[in-house]
Amino acid sequence: MKKEEKVVLVVGLGRFGQSLCKTLSEFHNQVIAVDNDSECVEETAGLVDFCVQADATDAEALAKCGAKEADIAVVAIGESVEASILATTILKDLGVPYVIARAENDIHARVLARVGANRVIFPERDMGERLAQLLVHPWMSHFAQVPGSLFYVGEIRPIPEMVGKTLAELDFRIRYNAVVLTINRGGKRFIPRAETTIEAGDMILVAGQREDLTKWVEE
Amino acid sequence: MKKEEKVVLVVGLGRFGQSLCKTLSEFHNQVIAVDNDSECVEETAGLVDFCVQADATDAEALAKCGAKEADIAVVAIGESVEASILATTILKDLGVPYVIARAENDIHARVLARVGANRVIFPERDMGERLAQLLVHPWMSHFAQVPGSLFYVGEIRPIPEMVGKTLAELDFRIRYNAVVLTINRGGKRFIPRAETTIEAGDMILVAGQREDLTKWVEE
Amino acid sequence: MKKEEKVVLVVGLGRFGQSLCKTLSEFHNQVIAVDNDSECVEETAGLVDFCVQADATDAEALAKCGAKEADIAVVAIGESVEASILATTILKDLGVPYVIARAENDIHARVLARVGANRVIFPERDMGERLAQLLVHPWMSHFAQVPGSLFYVGEIRPIPEMVGKTLAELDFRIRYNAVVLTINRGGKRFIPRAETTIEAGDMILVAGQREDLTKWVEE
Amino acid sequence: MKKEEKVVLVVGLGRFGQSLCKTLSEFHNQVIAVDNDSECVEETAGLVDFCVQADATDAEALAKCGAKEADIAVVAIGESVEASILATTILKDLGVPYVIARAENDIHARVLARVGANRVIFPERDMGERLAQLLVHPWMSHFAQVPGSLFYVGEIRPIPEMVGKTLAELDFRIRYNAVVLTINRGGKRFIPRAETTIEAGDMILVAGQREDLTKWVEE
Amino acid sequence: MKKEEKVVLVVGLGRFGQSLCKTLSEFHNQVIAVDNDSECVEETAGLVDFCVQADATDAEALAKCGAKEADIAVVAIGESVEASILATTILKDLGVPYVIARAENDIHARVLARVGANRVIFPERDMGERLAQLLVHPWMSHFAQVPGSLFYVGEIRPIPEMVGKTLAELDFRIRYNAVVLTINRGGKRFIPRAETTIEAGDMILVAGQREDLTKWVEE
Amino acid sequence: MKKEEKVVLVVGLGRFGQSLCKTLSEFHNQVIAVDNDSECVEETAGLVDFCVQADATDAEALAKCGAKEADIAVVAIGESVEASILATTILKDLGVPYVIARAENDIHARVLARVGANRVIFPERDMGERLAQLLVHPWMSHFAQVPGSLFYVGEIRPIPEMVGKTLAELDFRIRYNAVVLTINRGGKRFIPRAETTIEAGDMILVAGQREDLTKWVEE
Amino acid sequence: MKKEEKVVLVVGLGRFGQSLCKTLSEFHNQVIAVDNDSECVEETAGLVDFCVQADATDAEALAKCGAKEADIAVVAIGESVEASILATTILKDLGVPYVIARAENDIHARVLARVGANRVIFPERDMGERLAQLLVHPWMSHFAQVPGSLFYVGEIRPIPEMVGKTLAELDFRIRYNAVVLTINRGGKRFIPRAETTIEAGDMILVAGQREDLTKWVEE
Amino acid sequence: MKKEEKVVLVVGLGRFGQSLCKTLSEFHNQVIAVDNDSECVEETAGLVDFCVQADATDAEALAKCGAKEADIAVVAIGESVEASILATTILKDLGVPYVIARAENDIHARVLARVGANRVIFPERDMGERLAQLLVHPWMSHFAQVPGSLFYVGEIRPIPEMVGKTLAELDFRIRYNAVVLTINRGGKRFIPRAETTIEAGDMILVAGQREDLTKWVEE
Repeated sequence: MKKEEKVVLVVGLGRFGQSLCKTLSEFHNQVIAVDNDSECVEETAGLVDFCVQADATDAEALAKCGAKEADIAVVAIGESVEASILATTILKDLGVPYVIARAENDIHARVLARVGANRVIFPERDMGERLAQLLVHPWMSHFAQVPGSLFYVGEIRPIPEMVGKTLAELDFRIRYNAVVLTINRGGKRFIPRAETTIEAGDMILVAGQREDLTKWVEE
Repeated sequence: MKKEEKVVLVVGLGRFGQSLCKTLSEFHNQVIAVDNDSECVEETAGLVDFCVQADATDAEALAKCGAKEADIAVVAIGESVEASILATTILKDLGVPYVIARAENDIHARVLARVGANRVIFPERDMGERLAQLLVHPWMSHFAQVPGSLFYVGEIRPIPEMVGKTLAELDFRIRYNAVVLTINRGGKRFIPRAETTIEAGDMILVAGQREDLTKWVEE
Repeated sequence: MKKEEKVVLVVGLGRFGQSLCKTLSEFHNQVIAVDNDSECVEETAGLVDFCVQADATDAEALAKCGAKEADIAVVAIGESVEASILATTILKDLGVPYVIARAENDIHARVLARVGANRVIFPERDMGERLAQLLVHPWMSHFAQVPGSLFYVGEIRPIPEMVGKTLAELDFRIRYNAVVLTINRGGKRFIPRAETTIEAGDMILVAGQREDLTKWVEE
Repeated sequence: MKKEEKVVLVVGLGRFGQSLCKTLSEFHNQVIAVDNDSECVEETAGLVDFCVQADATDAEALAKCGAKEADIAVVAIGESVEASILATTILKDLGVPYVIARAENDIHARVLARVGANRVIFPERDMGERLAQLLVHPWMSHFAQVPGSLFYVGEIRPIPEMVGKTLAELDFRIRYNAVVLTINRGGKRFIPRAETTIEAGDMILVAGQREDLTKWVEE
Repeated sequence: MKKEEKVVLVVGLGRFGQSLCKTLSEFHNQVIAVDNDSECVEETAGLVDFCVQADATDAEALAKCGAKEADIAVVAIGESVEASILATTILKDLGVPYVIARAENDIHARVLARVGANRVIFPERDMGERLAQLLVHPWMSHFAQVPGSLFYVGEIRPIPEMVGKTLAELDFRIRYNAVVLTINRGGKRFIPRAETTIEAGDMILVAGQREDLTKWVEE
Repeated sequence: MKKEEKVVLVVGLGRFGQSLCKTLSEFHNQVIAVDNDSECVEETAGLVDFCVQADATDAEALAKCGAKEADIAVVAIGESVEASILATTILKDLGVPYVIARAENDIHARVLARVGANRVIFPERDMGERLAQLLVHPWMSHFAQVPGSLFYVGEIRPIPEMVGKTLAELDFRIRYNAVVLTINRGGKRFIPRAETTIEAGDMILVAGQREDLTKWVEE
Repeated sequence: MKKEEKVVLVVGLGRFGQSLCKTLSEFHNQVIAVDNDSECVEETAGLVDFCVQADATDAEALAKCGAKEADIAVVAIGESVEASILATTILKDLGVPYVIARAENDIHARVLARVGANRVIFPERDMGERLAQLLVHPWMSHFAQVPGSLFYVGEIRPIPEMVGKTLAELDFRIRYNAVVLTINRGGKRFIPRAETTIEAGDMILVAGQREDLTKWVEE
Repeated sequence: MKKEEKVVLVVGLGRFGQSLCKTLSEFHNQVIAVDNDSECVEETAGLVDFCVQADATDAEALAKCGAKEADIAVVAIGESVEASILATTILKDLGVPYVIARAENDIHARVLARVGANRVIFPERDMGERLAQLLVHPWMSHFAQVPGSLFYVGEIRPIPEMVGKTLAELDFRIRYNAVVLTINRGGKRFIPRAETTIEAGDMILVAGQREDLTKWVEE
């Protein structure tokens, strides 16, 4: 996939689909929004270029909406397993290169994959997991996990024992099993050296693994 | 909030609530799961310590479930605005210190805040935004945004023009307006110096802002 | 609040709301009546200046009805707890200075107060209490309780033992633990003195507490 | 009707019926509460001596509840016009001396009267009228209308121009077209004479007609 | 009631009401037919002068249909007890001199009488009784009961033992405890005398009581 | 059909079926009552020997109720055309000699006849016609039509012009085109002769045709 | 029935009825398609000459569709037993010479026959049986049963033991209790003689009874 | 697939599924019948070895029914597209070697194939086509099409012009473009030679193509 603007077809305009449409439009993509429910269509109409009331299980109807021109289609239908499966099937048959489909559960996901979905997502399950992690480790709200790694990166204030000491004195890497990536001092960010002294007002960007960070990073 | 195990009460056991319960339990928290629907209760029963069928709009019923002992309550109800408001009100009245409530839309969110919710979340809206970003900038699937900053951090392979050059030669910071944080070479991660040469098999952890990264980080 | 004519917005046009609209109009107030149900709107249309079919949970719709100009809004919705909460929230957000909301039960009342209702009322509960009192002490149908006091004031005929005696002879205040406020004799009302003789045809306005009046005031 | 305890049968246990039952029980009356809906019966069971789930349109069922022993029956059914009519008919046929029935509208009221209701009430309409009056004349919340008269009686603080003057100096009766009934000074209530001086902290119990009071009694 | 043409209002156009309208029209009466259901109105429209879709529980609507001009109104509503009671009440209030109302059961009938129905009918109950009688005494299908008496009158062929004998010889009145009213011989009907001989082809019109006729009248 | 007691099976226990069962039982017939609805079965249980809840469209179920022993079956089902057709078919297949079925309309009646119904009845239509006749000719409430003839027979008081005259003087048969069958004088009934004088208190049993009777028989 | 084009009326346009209409039209018959459901009518409209939305239980409506001109009518209604019976009755009454009706079960079939259906079919039952046979004897998918006989005829490849032998050598008829009807060799079909040698590539058309074929015909 | 007894799982017990189960059982196969509806399960219970009420979209439930032991599974569900897709997916995942699934329409069929159905069937469509053919060519009711060929084989009586002639004289193959396979004379079937004379009572088994047979084979 390239970085230029894409045509994205969003099928199913509930909370998830609407939010998707809104954000995509803000990034200046061309969005085609489709739902069978007139109320949902009305709510979304102001957010996108092209919003149609159509039955997503009807191949002709989807074709008329311009599905064949879509680079990506997102089947965001959240209530009808049947409609989500049929829409995915039709979109692949119409030649949409990349179809993302939302699944309710594992078996639904398996079916979506078999009928051709290029990617299956579980928005509610993912958000549940995410919230759980934050509740367990509140400091995580200041950190992000680097995708594909066990590292968490976040910017925090130093804990009292760090202030006035150099990274070398603290033996930071060994003591905390974490790395200081940058320091933001007075609005200016720089990469510290071993002899850099941590000051009380610093915001330090650190990276480390969950177990290690949990020991000393307070909320 | 401390790091020790907390008692978390989850009210509303749909996809989102169940996923929340499951992940919390995996982190060894004590979870009390409540829903009025017997089917949802049955599905969740195997995931948590304590799962009860109860009406979340009935103060006595919630008290009996042990709501007063909860450190955190999550009102994950996704369908009934009324039930979500009443449950939030009751939980605050029962003295739960931190109540997180899920909102359907802005006005719902305002009501939840006024009746005492400490935090209001929009899981489906958030997931929609997130997916939209990934569709616009596919490289983002390898990056995470550092919370509270405009920085994105991710681990990627070097692009061809970097290989065989030192960071100094590349004038990395200026050319790409980004910082190399660590390099993972042959499974060993180190902080590079200016004279470190980038090799073809390296995984480099870089941090930068979206506009800058978009220019050169390919998927 | 001043005595001049006010603009009153009534949301919810059931029996209670309609009766409210009707009486307000008879006092020459400007009434805006709103309900989502076309039948209710039709029934009320003849009673008020301005009657609109609109969704009271939609901020824009309420604004269009002129809610911002209202001095007082009464959320008289009797069936949907959700609608009553949302409408109250919206009306406060629109800047209505005084919002009165009808509650179904105690928790509903607590929510209404928290989202900003200036006053919460329980019409059916109040009427139930009122009828109960009348059934217990039928004489009460001739008396009114002075608000904020334990005194009941009412106009009744004298009981036989009083007729032909002066208030002094009767030692009225001690004997009945009550005060004669005025006497209406032949259509002319006057404040009696101690030496005034009670006559058979008099209507005497007395004030006393419930327990004392119950002893001698027959229906 | 005598003042001794009565047996009151309440048919229909909605908000109005429940409130009626509760208040009657607090006055130590014997209350028989009847509804066809198990949830309503359950909610009321704790409030009264005797609460039965029964069909109020079935003569035998009402007889079994002890309807024949009732001194008063209140048909508080608020939803089914048919049930309210049939229950009223049956209760009169069973010999209940005094039956009070709740009407939805005028024609319903006429039917209730013809099938024998001794009194027909309109709780929601009455409450609507009452609230309307209060909105129009806020001072009314401190006053009560003496039943059967045009007089309103209430206890208020004196307005500035009264303080320090005797009733005679003020020519109170003429100037305000109202009567001072009692004065409560420092917790002691007495009947003032013409030469009594009104003091700033007094609570004066006045009686007058609406138009006159409206001119000077501020909220 | 006179024999000239009357204006009959029929409210409720089910099977019973339609059949009533149809027969009345055949007798050249002026029939006004009213029902709230458009399908029923359509079916009846071809049978009567004037057929209106209107709500029979709405006094104005009934007045507009011309209810005040009706000599007789038949409330033939068969499903809604409430509608039947309200319609009857309204029709009497509108001044219809004679209102016939159809009842579902005894208590319904009592209510109808109290709200002013001049006559209450039970069509299905009556038809059930009638069919039962015919099944018990099949000969009854040839007989009619003289209203207000125990006599049944019917025309039958003589049983074998009668043929060739005179009434006197048979001692008809004593033997059969029945009276021969007329004899129809060869299409000519005459009143027989004691010496008239019964012939095989005669049709004799006899009158008697059920128990007596049952003994000898075969089907 | 003989006069001895028969076994009658009644299928369908609405108003019509219940009334049929009740009257049949009063005549000491053995009645088997069947309905699929438990409430109807309960209401009928006290009226008949044997009352069963069973599905009338299930041949086995009907056989178990003893349908094969029935002399007559009445399919009194009033709501389901399908059930009425199937029940009729099954009852004929089970060998019931005489099946009477209730029809909603003409085509329903034709189907019932084709599947074997020995007789098809229209209770509501018949009652509608009957009431219509009475409304047109009120005197008919005192008369019965002799089945299979145009004659109406009824017992009435003489009209003024008859009193004090003999039948001969009146030339009754010619003048009124009607026959005096019997006279009931002082509780004693006799067949009058031509010279019998009609007295004021007599009840005379007359027979005639509708047109002729209408001329002089007042209600 | 002749071979020329017929007018076929199809009532009920579900899967079965639509497929029937489609195939009939492909054979150039004149098809009239009728259903009460607008969606079904719309789906069928493109397949036939004449497609009408009409109530098949209304004689007039069917007559207007041209039912009287139909040579054959197929009542393909699959859901309403009542509609199927009434439509069949009406079509016979309208004079359609040959009516085929679809039955749900045996009793339904009996009723259809009695109201005049010339043929009753059970499409789902037949297909169930057919599939069962194929599952039991997979070779049957290559064979067809000769109607009215126990013979199955099919074209298969020879089994190994046959190749290179003459029919006489094999003593085919005795050994396999089956007859070779034709042999298709290189696209040319001929009737073999006893001395014909079976070759490996032959397709032989054999006829035999199920039990015998089952012994040697592999799938 | 072998000819020995197989274990067949039938999911969905409507008319089609029940008929399938019944016929399979008659062939002594072991049938497991599953449906979610208790009524369907009850109706089928007498027809098969093992009949279970279970949710076919629940993998565990199907496994408990013994789905893993099934040689063949037939997803005969006719109403829910979703259930049919999920059940097919689950059955393939459980390892059932051959799954036959019933489709409502083409897109449904495509999905079924993609999730793993080995064969997709359209029972109602097939039956519709079949009936259409019979209506067009009534002689087809005596013929069967040899699968995979254009040949129809059927046993008919000779037409008049054939009787008394030899096949050679008739030049049968040329004249009728059809082959006489066998002749059944007096209950004995034989393969005719060219010199065999056709007799009036013969039943001749002929094979030919539709167009040719249509020319001379009368019904």
